[in-house]
Amino acid sequence: MDEIEWKHKPVESGYHAWLSYNKALPGAQLEQYRQWGGAIVSLEEQETIQAAAAELKLGLEAMLGHSVSAAPNQGQLHIALGTFDSLHVRYQSLFSEKEIEAAEAEGFVIRTSHADSCLAIGAASPAGVLYGVFHLLRLIGTGAAIDELAIISAPVNGLRMINHWDNFDGSIERGYAGNSFLYKNNRFTEDQERLRDYARMMASVGINAIAINNVNVHQEETLFITPTYLPQVAKLADIFRVYGIRLYLSINFASPIQIGGLETADPLELDVQGWWNNKASEIYAAIPDFGGFLVKADSENRPGPFTYGRDHAEGANMLAEALLPHGGIVIWRCFVYNCKQDWRDRKTDRARAAYDHFKPLDGRFNDNVVLQIKNGPLDFQVREPVSPLFGALEHTNQLIEFQITQEYTGQQRHLCYLVPQWKEILEFNTYAEGEKAPVKRVVDGSLWGNRINGMAAVTNVGEDWNWSGHLLAQANLYGYGRLAWNPDLTAEQIASEWIQLVFSLDAAIHDVISGLLMDSWSIYESYTAPLGIGWMVNPNHHYGPNVDGYEYSPWGTYHFADHKGIGVDRTVQTGTGYSAQYMGANAEVYNSLEHCPDELLLFFHHVPYTHVLHSGKTVIQHIYDNHFEGVERAAQLLSAWSSLQGRIKEELYSQVEERLREQARHAEEWRDQINTYFWRKSGIEDKHHRKIY
Amino acid sequence: MDEIEWKHKPVESGYHAWLSYNKALPGAQLEQYRQWGGAIVSLEEQETIQAAAAELKLGLEAMLGHSVSAAPNQGQLHIALGTFDSLHVRYQSLFSEKEIEAAEAEGFVIRTSHADSCLAIGAASPAGVLYGVFHLLRLIGTGAAIDELAIISAPVNGLRMINHWDNFDGSIERGYAGNSFLYKNNRFTEDQERLRDYARMMASVGINAIAINNVNVHQEETLFITPTYLPQVAKLADIFRVYGIRLYLSINFASPIQIGGLETADPLELDVQGWWNNKASEIYAAIPDFGGFLVKADSENRPGPFTYGRDHAEGANMLAEALLPHGGIVIWRCFVYNCKQDWRDRKTDRARAAYDHFKPLDGRFNDNVVLQIKNGPLDFQVREPVSPLFGALEHTNQLIEFQITQEYTGQQRHLCYLVPQWKEILEFNTYAEGEKAPVKRVVDGSLWGNRINGMAAVTNVGEDWNWSGHLLAQANLYGYGRLAWNPDLTAEQIASEWIQLVFSLDAAIHDVISGLLMDSWSIYESYTAPLGIGWMVNPNHHYGPNVDGYEYSPWGTYHFADHKGIGVDRTVQTGTGYSAQYMGANAEVYNSLEHCPDELLLFFHHVPYTHVLHSGKTVIQHIYDNHFEGVERAAQLLSAWSSLQGRIKEELYSQVEERLREQARHAEEWRDQINTYFWRKSGIEDKHHRKIY
Repeated sequence: MDEIEWKHKPVESGYHAWLSYNKALPGAQLEQYRQWGGAIVSLEEQETIQAAAAELKLGLEAMLGHSVSAAPNQGQLHIALGTFDSLHVRYQSLFSEKEIEAAEAEGFVIRTSHADSCLAIGAASPAGVLYGVFHLLRLIGTGAAIDELAIISAPVNGLRMINHWDNFDGSIERGYAGNSFLYKNNRFTEDQERLRDYARMMASVGINAIAINNVNVHQEETLFITPTYLPQVAKLADIFRVYGIRLYLSINFASPIQIGGLETADPLELDVQGWWNNKASEIYAAIPDFGGFLVKADSENRPGPFTYGRDHAEGANMLAEALLPHGGIVIWRCFVYNCKQDWRDRKTDRARAAYDHFKPLDGRFNDNVVLQIKNGPLDFQVREPVSPLFGALEHTNQLIEFQITQEYTGQQRHLCYLVPQWKEILEFNTYAEGEKAPVKRVVDGSLWGNRINGMAAVTNVGEDWNWSGHLLAQANLYGYGRLAWNPDLTAEQIASEWIQLVFSLDAAIHDVISGLLMDSWSIYESYTAPLGIGWMVNPNHHYGPNVDGYEYSPWGTYHFADHKGIGVDRTVQTGTGYSAQYMGANAEVYNSLEHCPDELLLFFHHVPYTHVLHSGKTVIQHIYDNHFEGVERAAQLLSAWSSLQGRIKEELYSQVEERLREQARHAEEWRDQINTYFWRKSGIEDKHHRKIY
Repeated sequence: MDEIEWKHKPVESGYHAWLSYNKALPGAQLEQYRQWGGAIVSLEEQETIQAAAAELKLGLEAMLGHSVSAAPNQGQLHIALGTFDSLHVRYQSLFSEKEIEAAEAEGFVIRTSHADSCLAIGAASPAGVLYGVFHLLRLIGTGAAIDELAIISAPVNGLRMINHWDNFDGSIERGYAGNSFLYKNNRFTEDQERLRDYARMMASVGINAIAINNVNVHQEETLFITPTYLPQVAKLADIFRVYGIRLYLSINFASPIQIGGLETADPLELDVQGWWNNKASEIYAAIPDFGGFLVKADSENRPGPFTYGRDHAEGANMLAEALLPHGGIVIWRCFVYNCKQDWRDRKTDRARAAYDHFKPLDGRFNDNVVLQIKNGPLDFQVREPVSPLFGALEHTNQLIEFQITQEYTGQQRHLCYLVPQWKEILEFNTYAEGEKAPVKRVVDGSLWGNRINGMAAVTNVGEDWNWSGHLLAQANLYGYGRLAWNPDLTAEQIASEWIQLVFSLDAAIHDVISGLLMDSWSIYESYTAPLGIGWMVNPNHHYGPNVDGYEYSPWGTYHFADHKGIGVDRTVQTGTGYSAQYMGANAEVYNSLEHCPDELLLFFHHVPYTHVLHSGKTVIQHIYDNHFEGVERAAQLLSAWSSLQGRIKEELYSQVEERLREQARHAEEWRDQINTYFWRKSGIEDKHHRKIY
C-alpha cells in the first residue's frame, strides 16, 4: 500500500526531474539572479517563443522565490528573448553577424549587457530561443554566474532523436518504468499534461525528434498512418511542435498489403510506390511538419524488401521518394541479421551482419534516407566493440543508435550510468580518412559532410512517476540529450548538472551521487558476463544471469565455453574474419591475441582459461576476482547512498535505496552463477579459495 | 490453408477415436455379429440405460452395416441390457447371485445364452450397463467372438478420474492439443455435441469422475462455486451424469476471502467452516451428485492452511466436513514443496517434500478425504522413481496421479506411449506389509482396505479435432482409462485394442503401429535427460533441451554437473537421505551405488563421468551412445510409419507423419545439445568419434 501511495505523489517522486527548479540558496549568487531575473521581455506570438517565456517565468519564480514581470521598469535589469529577426531593435545590436552565423539554425546566443540592462537570448529559430532559455535556467539551477554571459551554442548533431518502443496496448518492449504514458489499451492517452511535461523535458536537453511507436509495428500500430488514428497522432504532434520536436512514426513495410489492399509490398511496383505517395500526402495533410518514417525491415521476422528480392536501398529509397516532396526522411535501421542461425555453425557470425549487409550499399541511398546503426555489432551489451560500420559508409547519411533503456544493463533495477560508455564509443577512432576520425565526427556528419546526421536512442521512460523507474536512470535520459547536443561534454560534467538540478548544489551530496554514477558501469560489467563476451542472460526478458541462456539458441550469440576455454574466434586466420571489418590499427589490434584489449578479449578470441591477460591475471582468475569484487562494489553503492539519508528528500532517498538494495542482492546471484558455472566447467580453483558452489 | 481445412473435417481427423465403429470385414465373424446384433431389448427409461442402448445401436449399425430393431422377432437372437433389478424376468435368471456380487456396484456381466436366444448385459447400476455395452462394442470392434461370452468385469479402482487443467479463458495449462473445448474467452462452450462425444469417450473406458478446471484456480474460476457460474457447471454435470461421470471442481482455498467477504480462510475459524458448509449446500442444490473438491493448497504460490499456521489435515478435513452430508469428497494434492529454493543449498531436496509433508499426517484425514499423490517424487519426468509415499500411508485414502498430457515427454509433438511407464509404476513393489505390495494394490485400496481409492490423471485433450494433437497420443488417454479399470492389462493389450478400434484389424498394420507405441517411451528417454536425472528442458514451457535450464533456478531441480561428474546424491551417508524414505530392499538398492539401477543412477548418486554402469559402459559413453542411437531410433519411427502410406486413411496417415518428422528433427536438437554440453564440460571424447559440436 505504501508503495502505491508513493507512486501517486508525483512531485515528491522525481517527476519534475531536472526541471525541478529547486529554490536557490541564499547568497550573493541569488542576489545576482534576482537582479537580472525580475522581468522578461518576450514580444513574439509564436507558440514556441511563448512556451519559452512561460518556462523561463516558471523556472525563475520557483528558483528565485519572487514574481517575474513582463515589463521591466525603466532601467531595470531584465531578460529579453526572441528570434534574431523579430527581437526588438534595441536588442538586435547585441548579436554580431558572426555570432548569428555560429548559432546556426537551432542554436542560440546568450549575452549579458550591463549597458543595455539586458540579458538577451537570441536565436535564428523559435526552437533555438527555447534551447537558450533552458540553458539559462540550467545555469541558474547549477549555481553559475550569469552577469557576464557571452555564450554561443549550436547543436553538434542534426538529429537528436528519441525512439519509443511503446506498443499501442500500453506495453513497452524493453520498458522498465511501467507501462506507456502515450497509450493504454489501444487508445491514445488523455493525459495531455503529462505529454506536455514530457515534451518540456525533452526540449530542455535539445531533443528535436521523437518516434512514438515501437519499431516492431504490430497490427494495430500499422493503422497509425490511416484515418483511424492519424487525427490522434496529429494531436500528439501538436504538443511536440510547441517544443521544437518533430514526430516520427515507425511503419510496417508490409502496409500496402495489410492496410492498402494490395497483393504486394514490392518497392519496385508502381502500385506500391503510388500507395506510399498517396499515404505520405495524407499524413502531411494532417501533420505538416511530420518528420518521417523509422523502419525495421527484414529483421527479426519483420517484413522488408528481401521478400521481393529487392535490397535495402531499393526499399528505403521507395519510401524516401514518397516523403521527399514534403520534406520528410526515412530512417532505416541496420539491425539486420539471421535470427534463425544454427548454433552448431561457427562460420556464421552475427557480428558481421550489419557491415556485410550495408557496406555494399554505400552510396546507393537517396539523400533523404539515413541509416540508423546500433553502437555495437550485436545488441547493446554492457561491453562490445564499436560497430565497424562507423567509418565504413562514406556516401551515406547515418545516425548512431544508443539504448537508454537498460535492456542488458540491469533494467533500471541495477544502476548503470551509460554516458561513460557512450562517450567511449563516440571518441573511438575509426581510422576512416586518416589518423583522426572518431565516431562522433562520423555521427555528426562533419567527417564527410552528411546532410542528415546525429543520434537516436531507445528511451527508458514509462508511466512511473519518476519517468525512468530507477530515479538515477534519469541521468541516462538527461545525458543522452546533452551528449547529442554536444558530444564533447564529459560524463562527469553531465552527471554533475543532473545531480545539481535534481538533488542539490551541496558539494558533498553531489560527490556521493557522482561517485555512484561514475562507478556504476564498471561495477555492472564486473559482475556480469566477462571480458566482452556478453549475452549470459535469461532469454527473452534478458534479466538476470544465465550463462548458457543463449548458447544453443538460433540468435547467433554464443560463448563456446568448454572445459578448456571460452570466447569467439573472430580473427581472420582461424575465425569468422570479423576483425577485418575494422580499419587501420583497429583491425590489427582486435585480430591480435597479444594486443586485443582485455575487456574485449573474448569477443575476438577463443582462449584457454589459463590465458594471461594484460592485467597479469589468468582469464579464470579474472572472472573469479571481478565477480567477487563486483559484488563488494555493488554493496558499496548501497552504503554510499545510505550516507545521504536525511540529507536529501526522503521520497527520493528511499526509492533509490530500495533499488540499490535489490542490486546488491542480485549482484550476488550473478556472482554465484557465473563463478559456479566456470568453476564447474574448468575445474580450476580460485586462488583465494572463496566460496563457489 | 490445407491444414486449416483439414482441421475442420472431424470425421477424417480421428475425432471419433476409439468409437469410430469401423465397418467389420466380411467373414464368419461378421455373420456371427449380425446374428446376435439384429435387435436390442432395453426396457428401462433411465437416461444412462437409454444412452447405453443408443450407443449399442449406433455401434452395431455402423460396424455391421444393417439396421437394428428394438423388438426381436419370435426366436430371433438379440441383445438385452439392463440393471439386474429391472431387467425383464426372462433374462434375470441368466445371472447367478455370485456373478451379481462379483460385478459389484459399477461392473457388469455379459452372457451369451443360446437357450434364451439372448446375449445379455446386466449390471447393478445403469453405469455398469453402459460399461458392459462399451465392452461388447469393443469385442466386436476388435474382432472377438461373441457367441460364447461369460464375462464378469468390475473396475479394480474406485475412482477413475480425469483432471482438466483447463482455464476459463480457454487456455490449458500444459495443453498441447489446442485450446479448451470446455471454455472459450471466459464462457462455457455452447458445443453440447462435443461435450457429449467427450463424455461417451470417457465412459467407454470407464472414467467416472472429471474435475473440469485447472488446479491453479485463478480469479474467474474461483467464481465457479457461486451463482454466477453454478448453473452452467450444473448443465455440464447433466451431460456427464448421463454417462456415469460425476463432476468435480478445483477450488481456491482462499475462496472465503475472495468471494465470501471474510477476512480469513483459516480452516479452524467457525466463520470459515460455516461459509464452506453453506457453499456445499448451495452447490449440491444445483448438482445433487456433485463429486467434490480437488485442492492444490500451499503449493507453487497457491493459498492453503499454512497461511494460518494449520496443517494440511486441518485444511482438508474442514472442507470434507462441509461435503460429508452431501456425499462429496475432498481430493487433496500432495504436490507440496518449496518452489523458492536456493540452488546453492544442496541439503534441501524437493524429492523429499511430499513424504516429509504427508507421512506425519497419516491417519489424521477424515474418511471422505483422499490424497492425490503424483507417481514420482518430482514432476512427471520421463524417468523418476516411484513416490515413496506409496506404501507409507497405511491409514489414509489415496489416489495415484498420472499425467496423460505430455508436459515433459514431448508435448504431443513427440510420440511417447506412456502406458508402459504407468504399468512399471503400478507393478513397483513398495515392500509395505511384507514382501508383495505393488503400487497398484496400494492405489486400488486393497492393501489396507481404503474406502476411497483409484487413479487420477491430467488429461491431454483440447479442441484439436483429433482430441490429443498427436493422433497416437490418443492411445495414452485410452490406455489410462483401461488401466484404471484393470491395472492387470498389459501395455501391449491396450495398444492393440486402441489400434484395432481406430485403424484396422489388419495384423501387419497393427504390428507396425504397436511397434511404434511400444518403443516410443524408451526412444524418448534415450535422447533426452540421461539416467534418471531429468529436467534438462527449457524453463516454463518445458519443451526442448536446455541442460542448465533449471540448474540455477529456485525450483529444486538440479543435476550438479561439473567437469568431473553429475548427479544428485540422495544417499543416507553423504546425501539428502531421500533414499531412506523407501521401505525394505528399495531403500538399500537405491542407496547403493553398486545396486542402483542404471536408469535411476543419477537420480540417487553423484558419479564421475567415468563411472561404469551395469551395462558395462561409462556414464559419459552411455550418454553419447544413447543420444546417437535415440536419434536413429526416432528416425526409424518415421520410416516405419511411412510403410503405412496408402494402407490406412490418408488423413490419419499424414497428420502422424508430420509429427514424426518433427520428432526426428527435434531429436537431433536434443542429441546435439546434450552431447555438446557434456563433451564441452567433461572433455572426454566419444569412443566412436561421432560429430559433437
